[in-house]
Amino acid sequence: MAIVLGPNRYGKAENRIVRIYRDTPRHEIHDISVSTALRGDFAAAHLAGDQSLVLPTDTQKQTAYSFAKEKGLLSIETYGLDLAGHFVDHVEPVQTARIEIEEFAWERVVIDGSEHDHTWVRRGQEVRTAAITVDGSGQDQRTWVVGGLKDLVILKSTGSEFTGFMHDEYTLLEPTGDRVMATSLDAGWRFSSTDVDWEAAYLQIKQILLRQFALVHSLALQQTLYEMGKAVLEACPFIAEIRLSAPNKHHFLYDLSPFGVENTNEVFHAADRPYGLIQATVLHDDAEDAGPAWDSYTGLV
Amino acid sequence: MAIVLGPNRYGKAENRIVRIYRDTPRHEIHDISVSTALRGDFAAAHLAGDQSLVLPTDTQKQTAYSFAKEKGLLSIETYGLDLAGHFVDHVEPVQTARIEIEEFAWERVVIDGSEHDHTWVRRGQEVRTAAITVDGSGQDQRTWVVGGLKDLVILKSTGSEFTGFMHDEYTLLEPTGDRVMATSLDAGWRFSSTDVDWEAAYLQIKQILLRQFALVHSLALQQTLYEMGKAVLEACPFIAEIRLSAPNKHHFLYDLSPFGVENTNEVFHAADRPYGLIQATVLHDDAEDAGPAWDSYTGLV
Amino acid sequence: MAIVLGPNRYGKAENRIVRIYRDTPRHEIHDISVSTALRGDFAAAHLAGDQSLVLPTDTQKQTAYSFAKEKGLLSIETYGLDLAGHFVDHVEPVQTARIEIEEFAWERVVIDGSEHDHTWVRRGQEVRTAAITVDGSGQDQRTWVVGGLKDLVILKSTGSEFTGFMHDEYTLLEPTGDRVMATSLDAGWRFSSTDVDWEAAYLQIKQILLRQFALVHSLALQQTLYEMGKAVLEACPFIAEIRLSAPNKHHFLYDLSPFGVENTNEVFHAADRPYGLIQATVLHDDAEDAGPAWDSYTGLV
Amino acid sequence: MAIVLGPNRYGKAENRIVRIYRDTPRHEIHDISVSTALRGDFAAAHLAGDQSLVLPTDTQKQTAYSFAKEKGLLSIETYGLDLAGHFVDHVEPVQTARIEIEEFAWERVVIDGSEHDHTWVRRGQEVRTAAITVDGSGQDQRTWVVGGLKDLVILKSTGSEFTGFMHDEYTLLEPTGDRVMATSLDAGWRFSSTDVDWEAAYLQIKQILLRQFALVHSLALQQTLYEMGKAVLEACPFIAEIRLSAPNKHHFLYDLSPFGVENTNEVFHAADRPYGLIQATVLHDDAEDAGPAWDSYTGLV
Repeated sequence: MAIVLGPNRYGKAENRIVRIYRDTPRHEIHDISVSTALRGDFAAAHLAGDQSLVLPTDTQKQTAYSFAKEKGLLSIETYGLDLAGHFVDHVEPVQTARIEIEEFAWERVVIDGSEHDHTWVRRGQEVRTAAITVDGSGQDQRTWVVGGLKDLVILKSTGSEFTGFMHDEYTLLEPTGDRVMATSLDAGWRFSSTDVDWEAAYLQIKQILLRQFALVHSLALQQTLYEMGKAVLEACPFIAEIRLSAPNKHHFLYDLSPFGVENTNEVFHAADRPYGLIQATVLHDDAEDAGPAWDSYTGLV
Repeated sequence: MAIVLGPNRYGKAENRIVRIYRDTPRHEIHDISVSTALRGDFAAAHLAGDQSLVLPTDTQKQTAYSFAKEKGLLSIETYGLDLAGHFVDHVEPVQTARIEIEEFAWERVVIDGSEHDHTWVRRGQEVRTAAITVDGSGQDQRTWVVGGLKDLVILKSTGSEFTGFMHDEYTLLEPTGDRVMATSLDAGWRFSSTDVDWEAAYLQIKQILLRQFALVHSLALQQTLYEMGKAVLEACPFIAEIRLSAPNKHHFLYDLSPFGVENTNEVFHAADRPYGLIQATVLHDDAEDAGPAWDSYTGLV
Repeated sequence: MAIVLGPNRYGKAENRIVRIYRDTPRHEIHDISVSTALRGDFAAAHLAGDQSLVLPTDTQKQTAYSFAKEKGLLSIETYGLDLAGHFVDHVEPVQTARIEIEEFAWERVVIDGSEHDHTWVRRGQEVRTAAITVDGSGQDQRTWVVGGLKDLVILKSTGSEFTGFMHDEYTLLEPTGDRVMATSLDAGWRFSSTDVDWEAAYLQIKQILLRQFALVHSLALQQTLYEMGKAVLEACPFIAEIRLSAPNKHHFLYDLSPFGVENTNEVFHAADRPYGLIQATVLHDDAEDAGPAWDSYTGLV
Repeated sequence: MAIVLGPNRYGKAENRIVRIYRDTPRHEIHDISVSTALRGDFAAAHLAGDQSLVLPTDTQKQTAYSFAKEKGLLSIETYGLDLAGHFVDHVEPVQTARIEIEEFAWERVVIDGSEHDHTWVRRGQEVRTAAITVDGSGQDQRTWVVGGLKDLVILKSTGSEFTGFMHDEYTLLEPTGDRVMATSLDAGWRFSSTDVDWEAAYLQIKQILLRQFALVHSLALQQTLYEMGKAVLEACPFIAEIRLSAPNKHHFLYDLSPFGVENTNEVFHAADRPYGLIQATVLHDDAEDAGPAWDSYTGLV
């Protein structure tokens, strides 16, 4: 019954890199937080404190910043593939590299009807995410790319009901035929290919998620999530699987009857905690095994 | 040398109220956090634990929710005036009421080119704020309204320099003729009247702030803030004073020269802490005294 | 190539329950955040919006609160086992229940040398955690218990070095023979039994982790983590596996030489981001398979 | 009706400085976040972008770090006085300097009954604060010191009632003769002198606050706060004024009666928002005017 070292990894988390393209007067901006994680032949560092095979996390940071110029920082998926490939291909002890990225969107300030060349306001809506894993070398090298978003806060003020549910001795909830449904959506989608127009894919998938949330008459958040996921898979042949995690941000109808005031689904208390939390996966039944695609390092879906 | 009770107030903070207008199929949504604070004849509660003149904070909450229907919740300034006036006029021991409000903006989901009737995505950009103070009764009643915004994150990738500054023995900073300037702006503006189109005023002021940030060639954040404030006062005769608080969110040029990579203002590290913090007031020299207008309860500018 | 529903679960997250024992004048307090998640026969809810097999998340909440009285709330592991067992055993469609708990410790206020009977100050140090999973029914029922802690912030001001590491073309870091080492430790330990004195185990494991952090001369955070985990396994035969996640909270020696001030490891800048992040598992080589023990719902290690 | 520059200041906020004393094997640690703010002759920077009288915020940072060695960092009040005095006395355009400090306490790890020499765990309880203001030069120089704490989370499970309060048409609250009272206390105390044993004063005041919270039978949070403040003033002749800000962290008795479970003040829901918020000042009636003592820069009480 020996004690052994199990799975382990290390890296530099949350490098906050801003990349400006300024080749013309109309600048472009890309603003990310990137984390790197390496797996490989690092047992000696744990067991004996021997660092001779350990590339410092500081070096991983330097590389991440330098690649923003050397390789460019346009699509986060491409940037992540470059970075992961570098560690696996050029750092001998590395078996697997995982790159997790959050991207913060900016929109141009509009002045007198025109977009400004070099001034932006942070959009502040959802955060776009990517998680890239590259494993092995040469012919056996494999790659997984997961795109996603988090904190997309959406709400519909009608078109949602919750009835016909199971009862037990602790069930007090009343059914409702018309409620506010709101969530702060986290989603991750696993690509079945790397030959993808990453920017177009992101916009398309986000739009499908919003569209389904709006148009599906909801009988439960479970059903809405499934319809959102299914529509993405139907429209995007390059997606193998999508995972959705959705807190049910409860909006409780406020009882104004003691004051003689009628409240017909007009005034709500937006509660913080507790909240329902629904998680679902939708996938192609012949999707390849996910491998380490979802093996989160810093908490991305 | 007696020990005495000094200034005091109490209320209910951060009531999270969502108000839906659903009189037509095209719903409207207003989403706020409102805090109420009362000053007045409350010494007995402190000195003797006598609550007979204390209107519970729970009652203040109930009133805030009910007023969202009774009085409506369209402009937060109007809603705040209704609520503050109620406490001062109808609760005998109350001498002064202060209402602080944060509003979270939503935008309609667009589907096939059309805005959806009842589905929104939270904009997530700046938070709009208001602080309303009503003091006294009858003829002597006075009112102060401060509008504002917080967390408006803006950045310009050129058009900003910082040179010619003072030196002492601790000064290491090098001057720069071209830097990234970014901030997360908090602003509050004091109205000189309550006869204002609150919605138009908000949009106008925000637009002026953005415009000046973009167009003023910046010699320092101090100068930019002053130009922003001055332009608001010039354009808005109904504003007596504006206060601006702006962290200098440092973007440090990353040194890639050890790797033989040129970095001509293209790759930056976005630092968290420390940060410069610049605060300035711009006002009309004949502005009335601000009284309690800026006497923050929960931390609004 | 059909589209299918994959793994899914739902529950009520972050129920904030405070349980007071007041059978004698010397009260006791237990303060938790508990999340429940159910897996089972819920495909109809997703595919057809049919809730007839869905026990509402509100019911899960009611149960969690009621069990704090019915079953008691002393050790969070026991409470979690009661709750998970209830859902699996008494709610027909439930195949697997997972309960995740965070516990916030309070210590008695000491007055004139004596602990007060019913007044506490929140300790504010680490958060204790537990994740209980119960799967299946009858003879085949299986149970996994993971205890843990998070946000244990520890620092040593000497006894840590980092030298002899690998170099590549992006390596700028200088070796150091004496540095500050600090982390905010998250740890989870998987029990091999449920016949455990949970309170004693928690205190013992926390103490071992602190002891090893202090006493091991550190050649790298990797080595320290391994020694911490190994010592836990050696001392606690009821632990099968421990997982550690440790941000390297960098304390950078501040360069005061421009001011003619010597700084011999005395003044540091405590940086926020980026940070190294080291994750390691230590386990018995004959440990049973972990099954769903680590399948986090709300982000616990 | 000219537009003019009003009050303004600038500085470097949230410098995260850790100071280790290591003159003997038994090290000491002081861990702070310090913010500096300067007022003075800075109009040209705002009006004309002229920086010639502006000492960069970077220089203020360098000074703060260097003073942690040059002057030492033991009591934060003393450190703050050194720093504020430096800016006023040695930087010509500075009229007023304000230093705001948060201190994070660490306690030694105890191993085999002995405190370790150089390993600590962060206490994590309240944050100690100080705000030092120095104005003017030479004979006319004046100094204000405010000590304080924030986020001291305290709870009593009995000995608190709330009855006999005022009613209006929105009052639904029921009186209670026995409730949980909890708060996250923020407090600031203004010293009437700088000839104070700062460390002893802090411990004494914190202990008095805890003692009164525990021992006073509470008829309302207002009364408790007043008794806490009064006791501090009675015991500490060097305190002129104390300000207390206390959210009423509601613990709602959970209704278990639908399940046939009795709940005699044993199971509570700890709510997040909204919360009552009580603020009170207790002072000597002949206290000197507070001047700028409470003019917060970064939000300290």
